[in-house]
Amino acid sequence: VPVRCVAFLSDYGYRDPFVGICHAVIKRRDASIPILDLTHGVAPQDIRGGAIALADSVPFLPRDAVVVAVVDPGVGGERRALAVQTADGLTLLGPDNGLLAAATALCGGAESVVELSDSPWRLQPTSDTFHGRDIFCAVAARLALGEDVTVAGQPLDPSVMVELELPQPLIGDREITVEALDVDVFGNIRLAASRPDLEAAGIADGGRVEIETAGLRSPARLARTFGDVTALEPLVFEDANGSLAIAINQGNAAAELGIKRGSSVRIIAA
Amino acid sequence: VPVRCVAFLSDYGYRDPFVGICHAVIKRRDASIPILDLTHGVAPQDIRGGAIALADSVPFLPRDAVVVAVVDPGVGGERRALAVQTADGLTLLGPDNGLLAAATALCGGAESVVELSDSPWRLQPTSDTFHGRDIFCAVAARLALGEDVTVAGQPLDPSVMVELELPQPLIGDREITVEALDVDVFGNIRLAASRPDLEAAGIADGGRVEIETAGLRSPARLARTFGDVTALEPLVFEDANGSLAIAINQGNAAAELGIKRGSSVRIIAA
Amino acid sequence: VPVRCVAFLSDYGYRDPFVGICHAVIKRRDASIPILDLTHGVAPQDIRGGAIALADSVPFLPRDAVVVAVVDPGVGGERRALAVQTADGLTLLGPDNGLLAAATALCGGAESVVELSDSPWRLQPTSDTFHGRDIFCAVAARLALGEDVTVAGQPLDPSVMVELELPQPLIGDREITVEALDVDVFGNIRLAASRPDLEAAGIADGGRVEIETAGLRSPARLARTFGDVTALEPLVFEDANGSLAIAINQGNAAAELGIKRGSSVRIIAA
Repeated sequence: VPVRCVAFLSDYGYRDPFVGICHAVIKRRDASIPILDLTHGVAPQDIRGGAIALADSVPFLPRDAVVVAVVDPGVGGERRALAVQTADGLTLLGPDNGLLAAATALCGGAESVVELSDSPWRLQPTSDTFHGRDIFCAVAARLALGEDVTVAGQPLDPSVMVELELPQPLIGDREITVEALDVDVFGNIRLAASRPDLEAAGIADGGRVEIETAGLRSPARLARTFGDVTALEPLVFEDANGSLAIAINQGNAAAELGIKRGSSVRIIAA
Repeated sequence: VPVRCVAFLSDYGYRDPFVGICHAVIKRRDASIPILDLTHGVAPQDIRGGAIALADSVPFLPRDAVVVAVVDPGVGGERRALAVQTADGLTLLGPDNGLLAAATALCGGAESVVELSDSPWRLQPTSDTFHGRDIFCAVAARLALGEDVTVAGQPLDPSVMVELELPQPLIGDREITVEALDVDVFGNIRLAASRPDLEAAGIADGGRVEIETAGLRSPARLARTFGDVTALEPLVFEDANGSLAIAINQGNAAAELGIKRGSSVRIIAA
Repeated sequence: VPVRCVAFLSDYGYRDPFVGICHAVIKRRDASIPILDLTHGVAPQDIRGGAIALADSVPFLPRDAVVVAVVDPGVGGERRALAVQTADGLTLLGPDNGLLAAATALCGGAESVVELSDSPWRLQPTSDTFHGRDIFCAVAARLALGEDVTVAGQPLDPSVMVELELPQPLIGDREITVEALDVDVFGNIRLAASRPDLEAAGIADGGRVEIETAGLRSPARLARTFGDVTALEPLVFEDANGSLAIAINQGNAAAELGIKRGSSVRIIAA
């Protein structure tokens, strides 16, 4: 059986050896298992942020990847630990708190789900606070080597998986009101809307708009990429994940416009 | 000879290409050598922090890993550069400043030690300030490919290795006083004590305690994991490394309780 | 054909899954392609910082590495996307904005250049803002597997490549005035000068100097490494990349001396 790749995402950060210890658990099983780190910079305990980063990543993963995602404030408690076999062939491992929901949907839904809390493959003794190490990565290594997910734990009805709530845009007459879902390292602002939402509001591609937040309005252009506007001019564009986004050419939009994650933003046809 | 895995830990951080250049030195020798990054987020020149992160990691490493650890304020000076062959089969490379001490002890002690400063395998010219690149990773690549550590440099008496001083808890009557060893990315506080220290003080599992620091007392519970207490309640627990620790369920204990690394903390039976 | 290694440098940071998605694109083509991350901590849109980090790295890379470098404020606009075949055997991929210039020169210059914007190997649909994913890493994976760079896009005259401007030292009589090029994670200050510049100014190795910045002077020593001076004493030394640099033994020179990237610094024979 060829070795599957393990893709790994978490809120473990880069300061502590948590990620490295998880890698060690996998490499100790077999040092030839390829590991692909998606990111470990998800904000601590930010389930929604992790879910979005995971959903952004899955369309590009190796087709039979074993995906471990850990943002797990309920570790050691009542929350379930899942292995989700998707219709598209990925296996997603992680806590049942909504983290896997958007990725599962993107992959055609869950074909089967297994509960891993008492997996025969978990490390023993199993800690109460580090299931990334003791359950998820220990199980992922076995799956990467070709073992069958149905042996990993107890079968579970996929319909009981915890869902993820995402904010929805409010579509008005030549305007939409949306939440700022995220701000990336460049200061680009991702909105909880997509281009069809703009079109539904009657806002035309290529036109001028205003961005309103906290009562302040800034003129901007609907554009395709940063260089389509002049230096330091704001633009509204479709980002590389298909979300509507705000940027400033050669600048930091979040800082300049005073928009943070969670801010309410209105895009108004000018 | 099968290829051994190189595990790598340092204070090189993520901003500069130091870690990547070290990887390059290894991959240039043989691109198939697996590299496992434990963490490079150790605080600059924090030998004790690096030693603890390394000790947390070694129990999970592939059994014959070559481990490179670099927190090296004395680089280029009189300090020795070591390759330590442990009783458990790991080879630990790094400066002789205490960084390797706790990991060596956990691995059953040093069976043999080699001094690497004039290793025939070092890169030449050898810089005075980047021995991670020029000595430790250059030597690690050879060892990963199966070459013999005794050829890597000059034999050294293991008993001369620099030790690491760790703070000890003060065990009283129904209380212990301990140093906060570290604060992780979640704000969880690791204490320089373990569960048996609590028991020695007569503080019972599952009970109520008070956490005192800088004259302020907060009630807390002795618990197994975060979900065992109510949201935003502090708990004292045994962390996944076997240390005593303080956390707040769904919160940041260090920020809420005003505890930093190095703070003195008293745990008192309530 | 043996698999080539992909080395990767960017300003994508560690918070978002950008780097992981790029890895996924490569691993999806073939999970056995080795990937070597140089750093992704280049400051956002800092072309010069990225160019220097890349140049520091290339002398240590596997000889036939495929190198992807992305610091790309002009993504999606008029700037060209390049694959540069160097005389030394590396292939460098990245935007044509100066980022590749210093590395190309270090590798003996460009033997041939291919423009990749319409590469048959790019991901389609191709986004306007994430060419690291859709062009550079998609093409790099093909090259790593042994495909020929001349098939990757349209041939381009190497002489039209955008150059990189670096500040030059001003060499005086027993003094030089230089720009602080960079400050690393340890607070060490890299200067836009090399040891021969000091010698040209008549400043002798091993001697005493003064470091002047913003009107303040601090005594320092010309030394080989940190331990050659007393604790907390400043030194001027040749760093591991061959640049002149300022450090403080067991301290943070940038913080102590008030020097930032871009600061003008005068080194004066004492």
